[in-house]
Amino acid sequence: MAELVDAADSKSVALIRRVGSIPSPGTIQPMNFCSNCGSRVVLKVPEGDLLPRHVCEDCGTIHYLNPKIVVGSVPEYQGRILICKRGIEPRLGFWTIPAGFMENDETLEAGAAREAREEAQIDVAIGSLLLLANVTHARQVHVFFRARMLAPDFGVTHESLEVRLVTEQEIPWNDLAFPSTEFALRRFVEDRAAGVEHHHVAEMQRRFPGIGAASPPVRAE
Amino acid sequence: MAELVDAADSKSVALIRRVGSIPSPGTIQPMNFCSNCGSRVVLKVPEGDLLPRHVCEDCGTIHYLNPKIVVGSVPEYQGRILICKRGIEPRLGFWTIPAGFMENDETLEAGAAREAREEAQIDVAIGSLLLLANVTHARQVHVFFRARMLAPDFGVTHESLEVRLVTEQEIPWNDLAFPSTEFALRRFVEDRAAGVEHHHVAEMQRRFPGIGAASPPVRAE
Repeated sequence: MAELVDAADSKSVALIRRVGSIPSPGTIQPMNFCSNCGSRVVLKVPEGDLLPRHVCEDCGTIHYLNPKIVVGSVPEYQGRILICKRGIEPRLGFWTIPAGFMENDETLEAGAAREAREEAQIDVAIGSLLLLANVTHARQVHVFFRARMLAPDFGVTHESLEVRLVTEQEIPWNDLAFPSTEFALRRFVEDRAAGVEHHHVAEMQRRFPGIGAASPPVRAE
Repeated sequence: MAELVDAADSKSVALIRRVGSIPSPGTIQPMNFCSNCGSRVVLKVPEGDLLPRHVCEDCGTIHYLNPKIVVGSVPEYQGRILICKRGIEPRLGFWTIPAGFMENDETLEAGAAREAREEAQIDVAIGSLLLLANVTHARQVHVFFRARMLAPDFGVTHESLEVRLVTEQEIPWNDLAFPSTEFALRRFVEDRAAGVEHHHVAEMQRRFPGIGAASPPVRAE
């Protein structure tokens, strides 16, 4: 049985320093100039549209901004669950499941498997849909699957300070990174105990200091 | 019982002309300049990253491009299904269910309800998840729900040439707009006949002229 991987403190610190200056893919960028022609954009409601958009009046390009998808999984190996301690902001040092921004040209499942490799060096078979979460305040939708680890091999990466295979009792509920992390893990263990694999559609609220719990508005199954 | 709304041909043509020049929100825009500072961007793998990104070497902004979410629903009223004939490109003149790009600051369900209002002037109560579809070649993920129309009132909008409430037998299977439209409608009627409300996770292939069918790689429920 795989155990806690020693994250070698000095190495971790160096990694934090190195990645600390990289802007997060989740940062909402200002939109001042047209990415097509370089002219200044104006914020206005285009003809035939209902919402204000960043519009280039030189080349006519309309720049739409839309929510991003975060894909992830709850990887399981012989009843244990794999979790990662985040090595990058936001929520550096808190525990999460392997998840990250979906890239172009990949499926949801391929993205979830890629994140598992990138964050924990694991190979997974993606299973049933676990959670479809509105994270509206962050302009994100989180799509998490159940996953089966193909081998008990895992390790840290530049995105994770520690990776662990834990029992349900060992899940660090008070040190989880995001509301959707907690929500996914709670539904995962509840459903597993009940012998079902439901999917859950839910809305996550902002995390407040000292609370950090997932919000109740939920439609299950 | 509501019937086909007369779309007033001359008005429809004017609408097509008016919206015909508006770039679709689905258009993949070229990325030449930094939207933050207006400098030229270069395509390179940022430090600590694995994929090439459009990077501004002047202000340091990394421009991530990610898949967009299309939200929609299959609205039902007393056993009939609401469909819309598209009044805008792509697939102008073909039939679809109310669906469109998810906006920032709304939930999936709110987006699906908004699209139903915008495309068919209907008020819906969003129900269970019907389809989560990878449309990788278009850099999209489609999320469709079942929906219940609150009244038999509907009408055309600038996005729809015609709106109809049809029986299952009246669905124009050969004139549907997109593979995900057909896939969603087929699963909807199959599940309804079986008395279940499954969700389906599937991958849509490119639509080929003369084929237009949804692709088989599917994981149901």
